[in-house]
Amino acid sequence: MRNIKLVLEYDGSAFFGFQRQPHHPTIQEALEKALATFFRRKTKIAAASGRTDAGVHAEGQVVNFKISSDKELRQIQRGLNALLPRPIVVSEIEEVPPGFHARFSIKSKTYEYRVWNHPYRSPLIAGRAFHVPFPLDVAKMRRAARFFVGKHDFRSFTSVTAMKKKDASCVRTIKQFQIKKQGHLILIRVEADGFLYHMIRNMVGTLLEVGRGKRPSGEIAAILRGGDRRLAGMTAPAEGLTFLKAAY
Amino acid sequence: MRNIKLVLEYDGSAFFGFQRQPHHPTIQEALEKALATFFRRKTKIAAASGRTDAGVHAEGQVVNFKISSDKELRQIQRGLNALLPRPIVVSEIEEVPPGFHARFSIKSKTYEYRVWNHPYRSPLIAGRAFHVPFPLDVAKMRRAARFFVGKHDFRSFTSVTAMKKKDASCVRTIKQFQIKKQGHLILIRVEADGFLYHMIRNMVGTLLEVGRGKRPSGEIAAILRGGDRRLAGMTAPAEGLTFLKAAY
Repeated sequence: MRNIKLVLEYDGSAFFGFQRQPHHPTIQEALEKALATFFRRKTKIAAASGRTDAGVHAEGQVVNFKISSDKELRQIQRGLNALLPRPIVVSEIEEVPPGFHARFSIKSKTYEYRVWNHPYRSPLIAGRAFHVPFPLDVAKMRRAARFFVGKHDFRSFTSVTAMKKKDASCVRTIKQFQIKKQGHLILIRVEADGFLYHMIRNMVGTLLEVGRGKRPSGEIAAILRGGDRRLAGMTAPAEGLTFLKAAY
Repeated sequence: MRNIKLVLEYDGSAFFGFQRQPHHPTIQEALEKALATFFRRKTKIAAASGRTDAGVHAEGQVVNFKISSDKELRQIQRGLNALLPRPIVVSEIEEVPPGFHARFSIKSKTYEYRVWNHPYRSPLIAGRAFHVPFPLDVAKMRRAARFFVGKHDFRSFTSVTAMKKKDASCVRTIKQFQIKKQGHLILIRVEADGFLYHMIRNMVGTLLEVGRGKRPSGEIAAILRGGDRRLAGMTAPAEGLTFLKAAY
């Protein structure tokens, strides 16, 4: 059995997230359908580096699957790209050691959240950024974001339902949290060893409330200590979020 | 009568170009419909800085219209943006002297053509760039592009139908022709005092044939001299083209 690693780029707008679910189109379903057609047998994705939510995009989603086949990598990539729907593409392909697992082998993941901060919408970046029409104090958001960096219990920034589901730890380590201004775009880039469900969107939603002047930047420390979802801000919408890359 | 200038941004994918035509949605029709609803009377666009083709985008299309109304500019902008379809937005509004005409007052126009140069498509820039899967020699394209700069008769780079329609001169002056590489994107930016129908897309199509090695870069000079559309290359597709700005 060969172990094949794929890097996927996709526009998440038309999908109900990565993970397969009944009655709704998902990235996993589209990919497994293309694999089955190409290899002429049912082929399951072994793992994905992150299960992106509905509407979330990816520049560098990583998956792996096991297959007995002597087809060349280029041939597999070309075949899958011909079979996949237009919003999904296999941008890289590689054969990896049998022990490689797209989720468990991960060292860090990087996401980017894009905010279009202008009184009016921008049709040319629609669907790729969250439109915030009121002025934002980016310096204040940066000061607030510093509290996220490091090892913390992030239970205040995940959904209550997600927490009830499993007893797993909510401790994660954020390695980098950058906020860049590029014209009217605000680019928020976060690298961590892992993320809880909705964690980035809840952190961004809270930062936007700080930027708008509704919360002091120091409040982030108290929200983290409080360990209660209700202390944090709104969940920023999916369309602004892109899974950038996974490091192994 | 006040003379109002608007700057429009739009995603051209869903429209049959700027200029009104029967049975097809156009930018002009959408805008005049919004104006009529807002001002409660038929209101025509006096002029547009460029009549973008079907599928062509705009970051800075300029139009003007005359109106008797005491509404404030911010109020007009907000009202139009609430009425316009999502792919169109009024990004700027300004009251201009009676003599201002969005087409005749123009000094120069700038367009950008985007090429995604990678073996595979990129779902995240789909619809905003032309996908060229074969390798391109950008240095060669730059050498070829230098022949376009200056005052020339561009009849070889417009459509034959457009030429037959009117006796107008085909002489235009290109002020700048830049080709930048940004990762796998090639950004081709052209500034001129004006453009003939399909002129940019025909120049880009020809440059792509140079970049692919199908024509020597010096051939551009001969094509310009020849004055025959059949000498030039293909018409690059509309989706890669964006009207950036008009200078007055």
